[in-house]
Amino acid sequence: MHPFRLACRNTLSDIRGQGRYRTFTPLRKHADRFPVFTTERDGKPCDITVWSSNDYLGMGVHPAVIEAAAQAARSMGAGAGGTRNIAGTSDLHDALEAELADLHGKQAALLFTSGYVSNQATLTAILRSLPDWHVFSDAKNHASMIVGVKGAPATVHIFAHNDLADLQAKLATAPAGAPKLIAFESVYSMDGDIAPIGAICDLAERYGAMTYLDEVHAVGLYGPTGGGVSERDGVARRVDIIEGTLAKGFGCHGGYIAGDVEVVDFIRSTASGFIFTTSLPPTTVAAALASLRHVRGDSARRTALFARTETLKAKLDRAGIRRLPTASHIVPVHVGEAALCREVSRRLMDEFAIYATPINYPTVPVGQERLRLTPTPLHTDAMMDALVEALRNVLPRDLAIAA
Amino acid sequence: MHPFRLACRNTLSDIRGQGRYRTFTPLRKHADRFPVFTTERDGKPCDITVWSSNDYLGMGVHPAVIEAAAQAARSMGAGAGGTRNIAGTSDLHDALEAELADLHGKQAALLFTSGYVSNQATLTAILRSLPDWHVFSDAKNHASMIVGVKGAPATVHIFAHNDLADLQAKLATAPAGAPKLIAFESVYSMDGDIAPIGAICDLAERYGAMTYLDEVHAVGLYGPTGGGVSERDGVARRVDIIEGTLAKGFGCHGGYIAGDVEVVDFIRSTASGFIFTTSLPPTTVAAALASLRHVRGDSARRTALFARTETLKAKLDRAGIRRLPTASHIVPVHVGEAALCREVSRRLMDEFAIYATPINYPTVPVGQERLRLTPTPLHTDAMMDALVEALRNVLPRDLAIAA
Ligand SMILES: Cc1ncc(COP(=O)(O)O)c(C=O)c1O
Ligand SMILES: Cc1ncc(COP(=O)(O)O)c(C=O)c1O
Repeated sequence: MHPFRLACRNTLSDIRGQGRYRTFTPLRKHADRFPVFTTERDGKPCDITVWSSNDYLGMGVHPAVIEAAAQAARSMGAGAGGTRNIAGTSDLHDALEAELADLHGKQAALLFTSGYVSNQATLTAILRSLPDWHVFSDAKNHASMIVGVKGAPATVHIFAHNDLADLQAKLATAPAGAPKLIAFESVYSMDGDIAPIGAICDLAERYGAMTYLDEVHAVGLYGPTGGGVSERDGVARRVDIIEGTLAKGFGCHGGYIAGDVEVVDFIRSTASGFIFTTSLPPTTVAAALASLRHVRGDSARRTALFARTETLKAKLDRAGIRRLPTASHIVPVHVGEAALCREVSRRLMDEFAIYATPINYPTVPVGQERLRLTPTPLHTDAMMDALVEALRNVLPRDLAIAA
Repeated sequence: MHPFRLACRNTLSDIRGQGRYRTFTPLRKHADRFPVFTTERDGKPCDITVWSSNDYLGMGVHPAVIEAAAQAARSMGAGAGGTRNIAGTSDLHDALEAELADLHGKQAALLFTSGYVSNQATLTAILRSLPDWHVFSDAKNHASMIVGVKGAPATVHIFAHNDLADLQAKLATAPAGAPKLIAFESVYSMDGDIAPIGAICDLAERYGAMTYLDEVHAVGLYGPTGGGVSERDGVARRVDIIEGTLAKGFGCHGGYIAGDVEVVDFIRSTASGFIFTTSLPPTTVAAALASLRHVRGDSARRTALFARTETLKAKLDRAGIRRLPTASHIVPVHVGEAALCREVSRRLMDEFAIYATPINYPTVPVGQERLRLTPTPLHTDAMMDALVEALRNVLPRDLAIAA
């Protein structure tokens, strides 16, 4: 046997042994019934209420968005058919980039095939532009930022999560003349906490660092027009590069960056992950454009999301269920052990027709396993009551009854 | 000014100075008129015949594919709403993976958000599985394979393009016990030449190496059911991992690998670029499934593509236009200088309403700049005659008239 096959077998058996082997639950979404999905059980479709979708506003099933996607398929077909440079740019791609730049008050924006690729490709391209970069990366940054940073020959400083003092201490150690970049997120998706963007920008200014902000879990949701936490806090102008996704708050697919025209043009002209890949399909681009226009102009879903989140939090608290306190729309419920986390999730599904993904290592550190609940404007009081009741049943007593 | 901004400015001015600054031409596809697109000129839409699409079979505008995409949008919405593990797996994702595995006669397949990501994520995950990998990478491998290989701590041997003797020499230098991987493509998209897959598998066997084959420019096109050159040559069984895209021959979007179940499960369980990103939207998955089923069952478009390619080659030859001889469906026309290549392309567009992308560095080496023509089953004789006539007009005499 080739040694790689043995390595596969051993790794998989380790993963199984640690109770973190993943099986994906096939869930079919129904545009007219979101967040109720169906799954198959004994060959028959069975209704499931989903509490783990990142389509935070339900924009993926908004009639205007669906209509735009279907319309684009009918008029332009299924795929783009080329890279951006090779026949894969349409007027819709250009329009979406202009709209995204405008959303963040930036001169330009650039589309990527995903948020993951936008982080990886952009950070790598930036950090390869000069020989002596020092990058300051939040300890809880997403995998896509980590691979982007690691893909380049920069000196990497990991600062303690959201810790301004540690960031400052690390900034102070780097050579004054070296180019510096602070890479961080606004809403951290697994803990649901929010970065002090303005204060980080203060430090960036003081030490002459550039700022790179991942607003993946915030765009569409925060700020008067959905421009993210940087818009809400009035600091978008001070962030050099804002990165986002079209796949969560906007309910579609793809990622992007926004910034000054020269910076964006540099990334457009040099980033491998942008250049050498088929551009986003017209269906996706048309849907995202419709979603973005709707979300910018109408804050009803944003308002409803936060009202629903408060209701859920209050119901969980009243039932004494131990959740991580958050200032965001993300509601993590602590479990703390991988096998238990999977078991809790399995029982929610099998006994209560509720889907809440077990979040285990490597997505969160060992010992911090959890269910991560994401209410949407479309989750009703009845769904919340059913969830709370189910959690009281399936969580061990010490977790269900807060100390 | 931050030194990065200066670096951006300098790099962009270098790129401009070398005549390889890219501007993307916005082209709107029309499902019912492919390969005729429209672009805007003086605010009015203007017809353009596109000769550079990688929708090689025109499957992106096949009625069954369009209908599947529109139908999926209506019933399931625009985006997947989560990673594969977090509510982003539907029965369609599973069905598409099963169909892809079957296409290549493999036990399993795995979807990625693009062909680029499938190469990068898979190669990096493989090469991180053991400490002492030796990887043998064809000199003309695509950027996405190069970043995948470079993202890991392996010893990298670049062998001369399609050169069995050089590959063998390099295999012989590596320690006998070290895990070895040969990474190569079947159809090389810029030169249009084809790898000797069987002979490479012979060497792999002899030296105990695994094989990783990128069939991005071949799937859907080659082999009795569109399984690629490895199917055509009857050697798919001997290739360990076959990688492909849904964005070219299948006309949609996304990438995949196919291989043994344990290997695929290892990648599924460890590859960052697979795990931490929103899964492909239902519209794209449904369209790809429809496309794949059609292409496997009906070879009419494949046959037509190769007949059309022969006709185009004959017409170019008859007109004395210097093209790189190829055994594939790709027809490169030599230009040899970046600024000239852009100028030729611009004149084709402005004076003849023909779009053929200039292919410049970094996509091809300096001195090998070219137009890359990709006929499809939908390019008519009249379109070909117009193209040949236009090329005779815009190419300098020494290129238009073969020696
Ligand atoms: C913080 C963060 N950044 C980036 C991404 C990647 O975005 P996308 O799903 O569009 O690839 C994710 C999650 O998927 C994320 O959580
Ligand atoms: C050889 C090769 N592999 C992979 C890719 C990437 O595929 P995708 O466009 O699906 O990202 C491309 C081109 O785009 C390619 O030419």
